Amino acid sequence: MNIEFIIGLTAGILCTVSFLPQVIKAIRTKQTKDLSLITFSIFSLGVSLWFIYGFLIRKTPIILANGVTLILVILILIFKIRYG
Amino acid sequence: MNIEFIIGLTAGILCTVSFLPQVIKAIRTKQTKDLSLITFSIFSLGVSLWFIYGFLIRKTPIILANGVTLILVILILIFKIRYG
Repeated sequence: MNIEFIIGLTAGILCTVSFLPQVIKAIRTKQTKDLSLITFSIFSLGVSLWFIYGFLIRKTPIILANGVTLILVILILIFKIRYG
Repeated sequence: MNIEFIIGLTAGILCTVSFLPQVIKAIRTKQTKDLSLITFSIFSLGVSLWFIYGFLIRKTPIILANGVTLILVILILIFKIRYG
């Protein structure tokens, strides 16, 4: 593994797992009013397209990373819609 | 331009611009308590690594997309640290 590969892999893992604490915070506090609905809506759409893109170019890391991110971001979006 | 290229490009643009409404919301309301500090810290680190990765593999789209995202996410992080 070269340095590029390690940096790219770490970047992907960090960006994916980063949304887990926001999911946990929303579950615990039931407070989401400071979150931007537009931000999480557009971001979900963008991640969905990366997910589709992964299938089109047949790259499993893109499918996996964006699949997990999509689940977390959609959860945040559901909490935002429910809690306001 | 093929369909893959258009979907990838749209995904990148959406994921980058998506953070602008959150920046605007934080500026307007001065309220960031529902945002997860851990989420935006880890995400900033991940995007920084994508930015470095873009330089390492000399890919301008990766540098540009992640450079803009990094500016927006660091702004959100600064507001979060300031407003609590």
